Amino acid sequence: MSHEDRCKVVHADDFRWDVPLREYKTEGTHFRDITRQTLLGEGADEQALNFITRYFEIQPGGYSTLEHHEHPHSVVVIRGGGEVILHDRVEPIALHDVVYIAPGSYHQFHATTQEPLGFLCIVDRERDRPKLPDADDMETLASVDTVRRRMRT
Amino acid sequence: MSHEDRCKVVHADDFRWDVPLREYKTEGTHFRDITRQTLLGEGADEQALNFITRYFEIQPGGYSTLEHHEHPHSVVVIRGGGEVILHDRVEPIALHDVVYIAPGSYHQFHATTQEPLGFLCIVDRERDRPKLPDADDMETLASVDTVRRRMRT
Repeated sequence: MSHEDRCKVVHADDFRWDVPLREYKTEGTHFRDITRQTLLGEGADEQALNFITRYFEIQPGGYSTLEHHEHPHSVVVIRGGGEVILHDRVEPIALHDVVYIAPGSYHQFHATTQEPLGFLCIVDRERDRPKLPDADDMETLASVDTVRRRMRT
Repeated sequence: MSHEDRCKVVHADDFRWDVPLREYKTEGTHFRDITRQTLLGEGADEQALNFITRYFEIQPGGYSTLEHHEHPHSVVVIRGGGEVILHDRVEPIALHDVVYIAPGSYHQFHATTQEPLGFLCIVDRERDRPKLPDADDMETLASVDTVRRRMRT
């Protein structure tokens, strides 16, 4: 295969790329108004990548799943802003802010403004599955006032 | 160490983050007007990341090194636009376009508009060093008219 075939540009048009626009997850009710586009790393030509570059977009009032896993996340906000639960605190996030989600940390993204919150999220190709909080974890998470007020499950 | 210490937000302010603004490379004359900020992956707290998230910015008229290496690149344009040499062709790139640089492919980014060209570039933590074209490679690269006109070495 030539280099021409293997290298590629995936052109963007108003936060849509020429890749499938997917549901965030195919089951569950612990998230709201969120979509996923996998930009690079899943195609047959991109198997040399050890990591996957995804774009998630949350509509105003929506949120991702409150979950944790052992693989870390590297996140870069490229649209709007909002708030993120980082295990035991809540932080505001704005355009181009970078978020590191450390292994084992509960996290949840919230679109708290009138604009969508869109962010790149890069993860290892090989990674463990996310886990939802059990009763004990819920109690611990809710013990922090700011987290309790923001979290949705 | 607590989760609070390990997770973090690196806030952005007009394409500057609270990380060192570095020269693109510490030696060489095969690039022009380009800076580098490592956003995530090099800190002691982020060793769980197997990949590094960097931001490069090229001022108008500037360019990165024409080089190749075995590790692939995942690139997302987040400021301005320009052109990229992808081994045997030249492609325009615009805001939020995604570029896959396949292993072994020569590539060079050019800021061809009046605005800076800024892009995220994600790479494996463990990776080989870039290589410059030798005489034979130069001849091959220059055999494509569009590449010959755009390339700078």
